[in-house]
Amino acid sequence: MSPRSAVVVTGSELTRGGRQDANGPFLARELAARGLEPARILVIGDRPDELEAALREGLGADLLVTSGGLGPTHDDRTVEVLARVAGRDVVVDEGLEARIGEFSRSLAERYGRPYSEFEMGVRKQASLPEGALVLGLAGTAPGLVLEVDGTVTIVLPGPPGELRRLWKKAVEAAPVRAVFERAEAPERRVLRFYGVSESAVARALAEAGGEGDGVEATICAHDGEIEMLLLGGSEHVAQPVREALAPYLFAEDERSAAEIVLEACRERGVSLAAAESCTGGLVAARLTSVPGSSDVFRGAIVAYDDVVKANQLGVPEGILAAHGAVSAETAEAMAAGARGAFEADVAVSVTGIAGPAGATPQKPVGLVFLHAQGPAGNDRLEIRFNGDRDAVRSRATAAALHLVRRLLTQSSHEQA
Amino acid sequence: MSPRSAVVVTGSELTRGGRQDANGPFLARELAARGLEPARILVIGDRPDELEAALREGLGADLLVTSGGLGPTHDDRTVEVLARVAGRDVVVDEGLEARIGEFSRSLAERYGRPYSEFEMGVRKQASLPEGALVLGLAGTAPGLVLEVDGTVTIVLPGPPGELRRLWKKAVEAAPVRAVFERAEAPERRVLRFYGVSESAVARALAEAGGEGDGVEATICAHDGEIEMLLLGGSEHVAQPVREALAPYLFAEDERSAAEIVLEACRERGVSLAAAESCTGGLVAARLTSVPGSSDVFRGAIVAYDDVVKANQLGVPEGILAAHGAVSAETAEAMAAGARGAFEADVAVSVTGIAGPAGATPQKPVGLVFLHAQGPAGNDRLEIRFNGDRDAVRSRATAAALHLVRRLLTQSSHEQA
Repeated sequence: MSPRSAVVVTGSELTRGGRQDANGPFLARELAARGLEPARILVIGDRPDELEAALREGLGADLLVTSGGLGPTHDDRTVEVLARVAGRDVVVDEGLEARIGEFSRSLAERYGRPYSEFEMGVRKQASLPEGALVLGLAGTAPGLVLEVDGTVTIVLPGPPGELRRLWKKAVEAAPVRAVFERAEAPERRVLRFYGVSESAVARALAEAGGEGDGVEATICAHDGEIEMLLLGGSEHVAQPVREALAPYLFAEDERSAAEIVLEACRERGVSLAAAESCTGGLVAARLTSVPGSSDVFRGAIVAYDDVVKANQLGVPEGILAAHGAVSAETAEAMAAGARGAFEADVAVSVTGIAGPAGATPQKPVGLVFLHAQGPAGNDRLEIRFNGDRDAVRSRATAAALHLVRRLLTQSSHEQA
Repeated sequence: MSPRSAVVVTGSELTRGGRQDANGPFLARELAARGLEPARILVIGDRPDELEAALREGLGADLLVTSGGLGPTHDDRTVEVLARVAGRDVVVDEGLEARIGEFSRSLAERYGRPYSEFEMGVRKQASLPEGALVLGLAGTAPGLVLEVDGTVTIVLPGPPGELRRLWKKAVEAAPVRAVFERAEAPERRVLRFYGVSESAVARALAEAGGEGDGVEATICAHDGEIEMLLLGGSEHVAQPVREALAPYLFAEDERSAAEIVLEACRERGVSLAAAESCTGGLVAARLTSVPGSSDVFRGAIVAYDDVVKANQLGVPEGILAAHGAVSAETAEAMAAGARGAFEADVAVSVTGIAGPAGATPQKPVGLVFLHAQGPAGNDRLEIRFNGDRDAVRSRATAAALHLVRRLLTQSSHEQA
C-alpha cells in the first residue's frame, strides 16, 4: 500500500492575521512529486488543544511534516505537544544548546542586548523530544526528524527560507528516505501555455482523453499563464494536447517567464530594457528577480507621468496629444525610447489603465497596449484585461514578458 | 456559547501544484475580526472522498465557509458533495442558468467558440442544492448560502477576486448575519513597528503583561515590519507597548507602508520619484499598486547597469570609480539624479547586493545603501540584510519606503 503523508502548518498569523501560508504548498508539491501527495494541508493557530488534535491526526499517516511553533516564546509549542503525543520526554541537547547559544550571542551583540535575555529561549529551542534526530539549524530553530509509532515526523521551523533550507536536509535523512523509497514517484509532465483560454486548455485535455487510466490532471491559471500538470503515464494525453495547442505552448518545465526571456536574450546575445507605465516597475522587478539577470537586463524607466514619458523616454508630444498616453503609438514610442536611453537591443513597453479610476468613454479600465522592439522588428499587443487593479497589473506584466519571448523566438510580425 | 467557524479550501493546485492559498487567510482574518476565528483552515485537493470528509467535519461548526470547486468541469464537485452530505437534491435554478448563459455567450463570442461548448458547464454551474440562497455571480460561478442542520454554509468560488466580491454579499445575507450577531467581535488593536527586532517587540509585550486576562496577541514579522495584533480588552497592554517602542511605531491600522508614504507626500504637497538598482522596480511597483498614486508618484529609474546609473541618473563617474556602485555616495547621487530627472520634490534610492553573486571581500551579499532626499534634507541608511535574493530585495524595498516616511515625518537628520 502506498505510504500517505500529512502536512500540519501552525501559526495564529495564518488563522487570524491574514498571512498566507507559503510552506504548505511548497511541502505538498515536494511530496506530490515523490508520490506522497498529502490528502490535506491543515493550517492551525497557536492553541495547544488544536495543535494536539492536528498532530494526532497527522500521526495517522506514514509521513508527517510540521511547520512552525519552534521559536523561543511561550506560543511555540510544537516540541512540547509532539513529545506528549508521542509519549516521550523532552530533553535538552547540550551540543545544540551551545550552537544556538553561540548564534544568539551574535544576535545579542548586534541588537545591543544582554545575552541573559536570550538564555531561556536558547534552552527552549535546544529542548527536543527524546530520540529526535537533529537535521541542522536555520536561524535559531533546529529541524528534527522523529519516528513515532511507525510515522516518520519531520519538524521544521516556520520562516519559509529556513523551512526550505532544512527540508533539503530532511529529504536526505535515513528514516525519510525509507518512506520515499516505499512510494512511487509518479511520472510528471508540465505543459505551460500562454495566449489561450483556460477553457480551451480544458477542452484539449478532454479531447485527448482526459483523466483516468492512471492519469491525473490539474489545470491552473495564473495571470494568463495556464499550467497543465499531468501525473501518471500520460504521454498519450500530453502528445495530442501539445499538438492541439502548439502555438501557445511555451515551456515544459518550471522556469518562470522571466527566466525564459532572459535565456532567450542570452542565447541571441542581446540586451533588454523596459518602459513601464501602469505596471509601475513589475516587469523590471520580475526580470531582476532572476539571479544573473544583470548579464542581459540594463534597466527600466517607470514613466508614471506623461511628462516623464516625454522627457525620459522621448515620446513625442504630438503622439501624446493625438493618441493619448494609452495607445499603440505611445507604446511604440516608449519602447523605442527605452532602447535608446538604455542602449539596449530589445525593449518592451506597457501603457494602460489599471483602474479603478482612469477610464474614458473610449478607453475602459483594463485596456493595455504593449510593444516589443528589437533588431528583428516589432511585436504589438492590445488587450483588455478583466479584474481589479492588481489583476490588470500582474496580467499586463505577464503579457509583456510573453511579448518579448514571442518577438525573440519568432520571425518579426505584427499582432493586432 | 460562542459560535464556531470552519474554513475549507479546495483545489489540487494547492495540494499538488504549489499554488498558495489566498482565500483561507482572507476568510480567517474576516472571521477572526468578527469573533469567529476558525480553529483550522483545511486545504484539500479535488478528491471527492476528501471533500466529503472535510465538509462533514466543517458542518460540525456553526458557520462553514468553502472556497473552490464551483467551476464547470468534472473536477468541480462542491455543490454535488455538499448536497449529498446535506441530504438535499440538486436542482437547476433556471433564472441563474439564463444569467450564466448570457455571460457565457459573451465569453464564447470573445474566444470565437460555439456556445454549445459552454452549455453543459452553464447547466452545471446553475445546479444548486435545494434551498440554497444565491448571493450573486462573479464570473460564471454563483456564491451560495445554505443552512444544513444548524450550520450556515457559505459556498464561494475559488478565484480570489471572485471570492472577495461574493464575500461582501455573504456577510449581508440574513442567515449569516444571524450567526455574526451571536458572536462577539473582540476588541482589536494593531500596532505596527519598523526598525526594531521581533524579539524586542516580544519582550515589550511580555513586560506589558503579555497574553492572558482575555488578551490574545499575535506577533508577525514580514520584511522588517513587525505587526502586533491584540485581541480583547488590551489597552492596558497596548499603552505600555506604545510607550516602550514609540520611535518604531509607524501605524495602528492596516494601511501599507506605500499608502502611508503617499499620504505623507500628499499632505505636504510634494511629488516623489525613485532610483533603484538591486530592488529592480519593486519600490515603484509597491507605490504604484496604490490607486491614486499618480497624484504624487512621478516615476522611477531602474538602473541595473552602472552605465545606466551614470547616463540616466547622472551619477558622476568619479563617484562610481572611487566608491563603487554599492556605496552611500552612489546612493546619494542616484537620489539626487532621480529628483532632477523626474523634477520630483522627494526621491529615494536603493543600491545593494541582492545575491547570491556579487559579493566582494569588503561588500557582502545583503549589503544595501539607501538614500532619501527632499526639500527638508537627507536621510541615509546602510544595512546588511539576511536571507536569499528575494528576501534581500523585499526587505530593501520596505526599508526604502520607511526611509521616505521617516524623512517626511521627522526633521531632517542623518542616519549612519
